[in-house]
Amino acid sequence: MATPIIFDTDPGVDDAQAIAIALAHPDIELLGLTTTFGNVEVETATHNALLLSELAGQSIPVAQGAAAPLVKPKAPAPAHIHGADGLGNIDLPAVTGKPQPVSAAQFIVDTVNARPGEVTLVAVGPLGNLAAALQLDPGIVDRVRRVVIMGGSIREGGNVTPVAEANLYNDPHAGARVLTAGWPLTLVGLDATHRCVLDPEAMERIAAAQGELGRVLAESYTFYKDFYRQALGINGCCPHDSCSLAWLMKPELFTTQRGHLNVVTEGPAMGQTVFAPEGRPFITEQWSTTPLAEVCLNADGPAVIDWIVETLGG
Amino acid sequence: MATPIIFDTDPGVDDAQAIAIALAHPDIELLGLTTTFGNVEVETATHNALLLSELAGQSIPVAQGAAAPLVKPKAPAPAHIHGADGLGNIDLPAVTGKPQPVSAAQFIVDTVNARPGEVTLVAVGPLGNLAAALQLDPGIVDRVRRVVIMGGSIREGGNVTPVAEANLYNDPHAGARVLTAGWPLTLVGLDATHRCVLDPEAMERIAAAQGELGRVLAESYTFYKDFYRQALGINGCCPHDSCSLAWLMKPELFTTQRGHLNVVTEGPAMGQTVFAPEGRPFITEQWSTTPLAEVCLNADGPAVIDWIVETLGG
Repeated sequence: MATPIIFDTDPGVDDAQAIAIALAHPDIELLGLTTTFGNVEVETATHNALLLSELAGQSIPVAQGAAAPLVKPKAPAPAHIHGADGLGNIDLPAVTGKPQPVSAAQFIVDTVNARPGEVTLVAVGPLGNLAAALQLDPGIVDRVRRVVIMGGSIREGGNVTPVAEANLYNDPHAGARVLTAGWPLTLVGLDATHRCVLDPEAMERIAAAQGELGRVLAESYTFYKDFYRQALGINGCCPHDSCSLAWLMKPELFTTQRGHLNVVTEGPAMGQTVFAPEGRPFITEQWSTTPLAEVCLNADGPAVIDWIVETLGG
Repeated sequence: MATPIIFDTDPGVDDAQAIAIALAHPDIELLGLTTTFGNVEVETATHNALLLSELAGQSIPVAQGAAAPLVKPKAPAPAHIHGADGLGNIDLPAVTGKPQPVSAAQFIVDTVNARPGEVTLVAVGPLGNLAAALQLDPGIVDRVRRVVIMGGSIREGGNVTPVAEANLYNDPHAGARVLTAGWPLTLVGLDATHRCVLDPEAMERIAAAQGELGRVLAESYTFYKDFYRQALGINGCCPHDSCSLAWLMKPELFTTQRGHLNVVTEGPAMGQTVFAPEGRPFITEQWSTTPLAEVCLNADGPAVIDWIVETLGG
C-alpha cells in the first residue's frame, strides 16, 4: 500500500525534484502540497507547486500557507540560489489550476483528522505551516503517522550561518515548536544531505525521462549548480529535499540516532538544532527534557543518488 | 630561547599534568601560575598550583583570581570528575608557599607590560582572569606575544552540554570577551583534545620518572580515568590542558584554520563557540565581524601523547 503524505514545500529547485519524486513514486500517495515562504515568496511557491503537478499530468491539491516567519522579521528570498522564479529564472509554461480555499495549516489538520494514524507530513521548508497546524489542533500530534523534516544540522555545521541550516534559521520559533511537539519525528538534516551530490550525468538521465517536467528540472538544476560551484566548489548539488523522501522509502540508507532536540531562537546560534543523544548525561538535564526524536547523522550518499535516479530516470 | 608563559589554570587533574609539563620542559619559561574557579573552587586551585610547583622543587609565583563567573550564577565544582581536592581525593603533602599579594588579573597585566611582545598567555580554565586583565588594561592585546586557550568545540560537540565545552560554558561572557579581543589567539578545543587519549601505560612511564609529583599525577589520573570509563567508555583520559602546551611547542601536530569566533552567552547553546572560517560567506556578515583567530580542527593524537610522555617520562 502506498504511503499517504502531505508535502510541505517552498519550491525552490531541490523542492521541485522532490515534488517530482512524490508525484512519480508508486509507493507514495501525494495527498496535497502545502506551500510556504522560504526559497521563494509564498505566492511563487504556490505557483510552482501547481505548475509541477500539472507538468506531471496530475491534479494535486495545493494549499498556500506562511508568507513570513512566526516571530522574527521576514528577510528577502535568496534569488541568487533558486532564481527569482524559484526555478532558476527559466521559461515556464502557464498554470491553469488554483490553490485550495483553505490555508496550508487548515488543509493539514483536516487531512490528518480525516485519516487518523495514516498520514505522514514531509516538510522541506521553514516550519511555519506545521506550527500553525499545531496551533489550530494540537491533537494532530497523536494522529499523524510520522513527521519527516528536511532541516537542521547536528555536527555538520550550517549552510546559512556557521551553525544553522536555512529552514530552521528562516523560522527558528516555528522550528522549536515543531521539533519539540512530541509527535513521531525524523530529522533529515545536513549531516545526511551533504553526503549526497547529484552530478550532471545523473541529471541528464532524469531530464531525458521526464518530458517537459524533466526540462524544467534540468534547466533549474543548471542555475542551482552554479551556486554550488561558486560557494562550495563542487560539480553538482545536494538534493536536500529529495533526501527526506529517500529516508521515508529507504530508511536503511541512513544512520540515525534517537535523542532530544532543542532549537536556538536568539543570538549568534539562532536556528541551530541542539541534539542531546538519548541517555547521554550532561551537566544538567535541561537538554534532555524535550520529547525523543530521531535524527539522521549520516547517509550512504551514492545509494541515495541511485534511488533518486531510479525513481525519476525511467 | 625558552618561551615565557603565564599558565592560567584550575587544577584539576589534567591541569596538574599540564603544569608538570610547564615546569619540566626546557623550552618553556614558566613566569607564573594564575588560578581560577572551574574544575575546583579557586582556593583549591591556588593550593594545588602551589603544591605542584613545590613537588617539582620549584618556586613559581601563584596569583589567585576569579572565584565565580562574570555574569552567570556560580555552579558547584564537578567533584565527581576531579575529586573534591581537584586531584582525585588522594593524600597530599602540606604546602609551604603563599600566593602573590596581587590578583591574577593584575599579575597578568604587570607581567605582560614588563616584557612587551614576549609573554604568551596559556589559559586552560574558564576565562575570567583574562577578561579581568583586559578590563584593567585593554592595551595588553598589543603587548602579549600570543594567547593559547584550551576551550571550545567547533564540530566535535560539547562535553558539558550537547554543544558547549566546560571552560566556555562555565563563564561564557568572559569567553566572549577573551575570544573576540583581537589579540593573536589560538583555540585548542575538543576537536583536537578528543583525538588524544593517554592510556595507563603512558601514565606509568610518567609516574616512574617524576618522583613524588609523579605519584600525585598517577593517583589523580586513576580517579579521573574512572570518570572517562563510565561517561565515555574509553580506557584512558584526554589530556585536554596539556594539548595547549603541545600546540605551543609542536604546532605542526595540529590542523588549524583561521576565522572569526563568537561565543553564545544565552539560551540552549550557551557557551558554544561559533566559528566562521575566513572568507566563507554566510547569509549576513554578522558572524565574520569579530577579529580573526586560529582554531584547531584536528590533531595527530598519538604524536601529541608521545610528546607528553617524552616530556614527562624521563
